[in-house]
Amino acid sequence: MTRVFNFSAGPAVLPESVLQTAAAEMLDWHGSGMSVMEMSHRGKEFIAIHAKAEALLRSLLAIPANYKVLFMQGGAIGENAIVPMNMLRGKASADYVNTGEWSKKSIKEAKKYGGVKVAASAESSGFNHVPKQDTWQLDPDAAYVHICSNETIGGVEYHWTPETGSVPLVADMSSNILSRPIDVSKYGLIYGGAQKNIGPAGLTIVIVRDDLIGHALPITPSAFDYKTQADNDSMFNTPPTYAIYIAGLVFEWIQAQGGLVAIEAHNRAKAALLYDFLDASRFYSSPVAREDRSLMNVPFKLKNEALDDAFLKGAQARGMLQLKGHRSVGGMRASIYNAMPIAGVQALVGYMKEFEAQHA
Amino acid sequence: MTRVFNFSAGPAVLPESVLQTAAAEMLDWHGSGMSVMEMSHRGKEFIAIHAKAEALLRSLLAIPANYKVLFMQGGAIGENAIVPMNMLRGKASADYVNTGEWSKKSIKEAKKYGGVKVAASAESSGFNHVPKQDTWQLDPDAAYVHICSNETIGGVEYHWTPETGSVPLVADMSSNILSRPIDVSKYGLIYGGAQKNIGPAGLTIVIVRDDLIGHALPITPSAFDYKTQADNDSMFNTPPTYAIYIAGLVFEWIQAQGGLVAIEAHNRAKAALLYDFLDASRFYSSPVAREDRSLMNVPFKLKNEALDDAFLKGAQARGMLQLKGHRSVGGMRASIYNAMPIAGVQALVGYMKEFEAQHA
Repeated sequence: MTRVFNFSAGPAVLPESVLQTAAAEMLDWHGSGMSVMEMSHRGKEFIAIHAKAEALLRSLLAIPANYKVLFMQGGAIGENAIVPMNMLRGKASADYVNTGEWSKKSIKEAKKYGGVKVAASAESSGFNHVPKQDTWQLDPDAAYVHICSNETIGGVEYHWTPETGSVPLVADMSSNILSRPIDVSKYGLIYGGAQKNIGPAGLTIVIVRDDLIGHALPITPSAFDYKTQADNDSMFNTPPTYAIYIAGLVFEWIQAQGGLVAIEAHNRAKAALLYDFLDASRFYSSPVAREDRSLMNVPFKLKNEALDDAFLKGAQARGMLQLKGHRSVGGMRASIYNAMPIAGVQALVGYMKEFEAQHA
Repeated sequence: MTRVFNFSAGPAVLPESVLQTAAAEMLDWHGSGMSVMEMSHRGKEFIAIHAKAEALLRSLLAIPANYKVLFMQGGAIGENAIVPMNMLRGKASADYVNTGEWSKKSIKEAKKYGGVKVAASAESSGFNHVPKQDTWQLDPDAAYVHICSNETIGGVEYHWTPETGSVPLVADMSSNILSRPIDVSKYGLIYGGAQKNIGPAGLTIVIVRDDLIGHALPITPSAFDYKTQADNDSMFNTPPTYAIYIAGLVFEWIQAQGGLVAIEAHNRAKAALLYDFLDASRFYSSPVAREDRSLMNVPFKLKNEALDDAFLKGAQARGMLQLKGHRSVGGMRASIYNAMPIAGVQALVGYMKEFEAQHA
């Protein structure tokens, strides 16, 4: 068996030790005689798995006691609707900051449920940066301020936390959650699909402050009402049990790496390796403003686009997969989530040098 | 490793060979160097897994070409809202037949989106049967007629297909889908959570006739709009990829058993073993009318409820788990889905005899 270096933007590489544990426990979890996949979500075995996953996530992110952690379904695109359904709370509109494709999706979806004001947008400059907060037009009566903390496609990341006063800050953190420590108390709600830094697709994490729960619009499906799920420990409907189990194993792995402080150092080292190389190169380039570059998703371009296919083919032959940029922006993209070892980035930079030497 | 006999109502027992394959392929699917969990849903490997799962499901159920198969999220409780959102199609109301706890949940949820008329109900007789169709009050202008084809809690199953003329028949088949052949063309829409006969929790199957797609209410989240998902091969948002992979393995297993004709024979043999024993007993009893008894979920009672705890304890000691009935009905329940081997039912009946001999 040869494992590849998988630079997919999501679903994405998982820690090999997590997969080994999952394989070993597949037919018989801890002597239960059952796969986790087969367990009743009401049974004591799964309730313990679920509680442990939540406790680990709370510990890793230092989530305050007045926040609920919900394990839901529907992904970030589902949440783009579920957030306004739950969070409008009788207000006429919400503020959205537009930093790229994922912000745009959130904005489009939110318009189904109430007013949307775009407080700031980087669209006119091709989404190559995060607008500085002093340019934001915030509405003090907004239901919430929505940001996408890391644009998976554009590779633009907030390296600071917006100040929104008494208006709750809502963040789609799908692609940078658990990549570094954050101050959860600065947010009203954090959400994310699991399939980047957490586990399998099909699990959505929602972290929401208690006082914001319980105000869902009447048309909110019960399965997606934060109060219904909070009151039932995320088991109002059958949760995605196996995905929660894998998420718990990933949380354990993060803890074993030294928690988010150590993970951040590792992520910074990986990203620096790649960005420093890009900045020193005249053959490749990064389209993103330096101070807003994502530590997780690194888009880059070959100056000569005609070489894109040859670049990808050579990468594939060397076991480096999923380096093609999103079709909406073209070029290349290396997603280097928590579970990507530094050896993967070293191999990529090595190949980029070799390819440049052959084609420059 | 000792595998138990797991009588859970869902998530539920899976074929051991499926789990063995999943364990063997966990770190490296077919030489790809990746776990299925790590694969981009846009990559050729996962697209092949997804297409194969759909093709197998179409073949097993003989799904006509004018039906779409959607792999969604949110479970049957999510669908309880998503169905009326998509299926009201400008009509004022829908008809619902009330055969138990799951019907009641569907009815309650549907009222958020339009009128609900209860065409028939077995509530006054404790949900011990399916009301005969000649007692149904059907509205010819209804958007659809909704049934729950198998009540997981009450153990009541339709062994016939309602005739609803030009009004589409909608069935929640969560707990008996793939247990026997059905005529899909008699239905407008079939849905079900995967966690009984299909695979892991977190995957929802929707089979819907083409002409019923494209009429969603404006408040429908895009991720749950049948048209959006149909137009994008269920990949408008990231689908629950690993659950789809496991479902595909289960579909292959069903095919290898001889398809649904063979599966039905096996299921009838298992159910007969248990019901025949219950009917011959004065110590145990079945609360359900004979002609409407579920082949999948077999509730039963000990005449002396004071022995319930001792019965469950003895079963547990013999490796027979999750036999406690749902809290809303009490007593016992043996869920004997496709993947429950006949040896499990034989062991259960053997234990029931032994327990009766000790306590009668």
